[in-house]
Amino acid sequence: MNSRRNFLQKITASAFGIPVLTAMNERPSGILNEVPYEGPMLKVAILGLGSYGNRVAEAMQSCSMAKVTGVISGTPSKIKDWQAKYNIPDKNCYNYENFDNIKNNPDIDAVYIITPNALHKDQAIRVAKAGKHVICEKPMSINAKDGQEMIDACKKANVKLLVGYRMHFEAKTLEILRMRNAGDFGKVLFFQGLCGFRIGDPNQWRLNKALSGGGAMMDIGIYAVNGSRYMIGEDPIWVTAQETKTDPVKFKEGIDETIQFQFGFPGGAVASCLSTYQMSNLDRFFLNGEKGFAEMQPSTGYGPIKARTNKGELTNPHITHQTTQMDEMAAIILQGKKAPVPVDGEEGLKDLKIIDAIFLAVKTGKKVELKL
Amino acid sequence: MNSRRNFLQKITASAFGIPVLTAMNERPSGILNEVPYEGPMLKVAILGLGSYGNRVAEAMQSCSMAKVTGVISGTPSKIKDWQAKYNIPDKNCYNYENFDNIKNNPDIDAVYIITPNALHKDQAIRVAKAGKHVICEKPMSINAKDGQEMIDACKKANVKLLVGYRMHFEAKTLEILRMRNAGDFGKVLFFQGLCGFRIGDPNQWRLNKALSGGGAMMDIGIYAVNGSRYMIGEDPIWVTAQETKTDPVKFKEGIDETIQFQFGFPGGAVASCLSTYQMSNLDRFFLNGEKGFAEMQPSTGYGPIKARTNKGELTNPHITHQTTQMDEMAAIILQGKKAPVPVDGEEGLKDLKIIDAIFLAVKTGKKVELKL
Repeated sequence: MNSRRNFLQKITASAFGIPVLTAMNERPSGILNEVPYEGPMLKVAILGLGSYGNRVAEAMQSCSMAKVTGVISGTPSKIKDWQAKYNIPDKNCYNYENFDNIKNNPDIDAVYIITPNALHKDQAIRVAKAGKHVICEKPMSINAKDGQEMIDACKKANVKLLVGYRMHFEAKTLEILRMRNAGDFGKVLFFQGLCGFRIGDPNQWRLNKALSGGGAMMDIGIYAVNGSRYMIGEDPIWVTAQETKTDPVKFKEGIDETIQFQFGFPGGAVASCLSTYQMSNLDRFFLNGEKGFAEMQPSTGYGPIKARTNKGELTNPHITHQTTQMDEMAAIILQGKKAPVPVDGEEGLKDLKIIDAIFLAVKTGKKVELKL
Repeated sequence: MNSRRNFLQKITASAFGIPVLTAMNERPSGILNEVPYEGPMLKVAILGLGSYGNRVAEAMQSCSMAKVTGVISGTPSKIKDWQAKYNIPDKNCYNYENFDNIKNNPDIDAVYIITPNALHKDQAIRVAKAGKHVICEKPMSINAKDGQEMIDACKKANVKLLVGYRMHFEAKTLEILRMRNAGDFGKVLFFQGLCGFRIGDPNQWRLNKALSGGGAMMDIGIYAVNGSRYMIGEDPIWVTAQETKTDPVKFKEGIDETIQFQFGFPGGAVASCLSTYQMSNLDRFFLNGEKGFAEMQPSTGYGPIKARTNKGELTNPHITHQTTQMDEMAAIILQGKKAPVPVDGEEGLKDLKIIDAIFLAVKTGKKVELKL
């Protein structure tokens, strides 16, 4: 992986007299040792060549343990572009009809599914049946039932199933969890996750229930759902939720615009969250304990996370999230490494169970008990 | 009112070459003109000589239009202390049995009721019947029914009824409302008020339902209730709420420890709030609009408020809240001035109606529609 980006990174680092390997060792869970990694790379095909797929592939240019080796797409022109950009041979290119043939391709260890949510389940099951590991963008699927089927299929095929929770490897996030575990905040009592943005084009798949399975909740609210769990360090035991829709033309039946939701946790902590497609750049986490607090803003965006606690500003360096994620996922798949916060199918399924419960709470107006 | 504090303020201002009157004109709604105020003072008796009563009296030492002229208390030793401190003659001192006699005392224009919540109603009605204006600490009473009786009694007696909403005169708060009205945040869509502290002594009246009428909600949660309304600029049309109790020994039946509550507003905005006696120093407001935001932290504490918006940090100077409040209330009573945000009985009643609805929502687990 002597990509231009890697090369530039090394030059830059050297220019400031910082040993490259030391800098790389600052990654949250330190994949690399003093010696550069020279073991096998995780060979990844990207399924779905949209803008996020492109972001992942770009980020993987800087990976040490994972590389893009194949593509699966329904759009021949996109395949051509990617082949040129990432040096992918014809034999590693597939479309939605023939990608079961990856089964016989030793250039592909895993497939990263980055397609509309409703397609994840069938695609994951096909990848599993082809004997390849599944990495699936969040939400893992559009409901818990589908999520369970994916888990079952991967278990049966004896392949790994990982969900694209990039924040589970983010340095400042992990530092806050370390501090929480060390008791720096005292008993944790409250979490607030405000996640939203103002969505544009009304014709995009994210606003089409058949493809997305829901609106803001599936897309951006899930960060607050998942964040509640890793920030508190427990799974919620109840949920209440309230939906508000100000633009029923843009946000049709089944596409949530704004949902407020609340959790209760076994230890007595509570969470108050907001998921919205109607407010710009809402990206705030706040964790409050008996003795201290942590706040993050932005908390889950792609750019550098900003975080401070009662002890001051966190200074962990920013590394492109998807680079770290893919290196760590490679270590999980190739070396059986344990993720700092789980990213497996069971983890994805928990969020889906909670989202199912949020939708039920909205519909019934009642508190929904959870057993995760 | 040539108190030592006033004197020191003037000296300090002069030392920096700032004309005193200009500095004083920076008060949010500018009571003072270029010429020092020399009209009549509002003569105020304090009913209830506890720590907050003392804070108000202290702050009033710097008032230009209001002064402490009398006291009402059940504790003779407290009365003695106050007489000495504030130079109050014997004829202006009353106890809970005889204070109806203020009727005949020209040294008292108004009574500021600063007693446990459940006592407000009867005391306010007695003050009104004595023909004196009523200033009542928040919450105005323990439920909407009692609040309405207070309003009726004051109307009948033709006296003013004001509620101690000191934030309604606070400079940074008002600057944010000005910016909101000027469209600096665009359409306002979300408010979050997190209000709480860790309450100490389990034997205090605030944890005795018969005196307090409720727990954290009546005491500190009301700031988020009231703040939701003045920050959004509308009254909510529905409320949902969830209670969590981790310490049922300290927080007995009817004394809420932690309540999360949510509002919907006619314009489509929503609010997510927290009221708690279990978390230390939780004092945060966040207002989010289509184009901008305002955040305050601390947002309602006594010390200087800190506030920033998408346009930067607010720099309005801090003036002791209760000083401004009492000068402004004097202007309302003596000059018929309009408050920047209402502080009358109807305003207090709205919060009580909402708190009644929050308790009902907790009890029923259902959304409660509001018509304020």
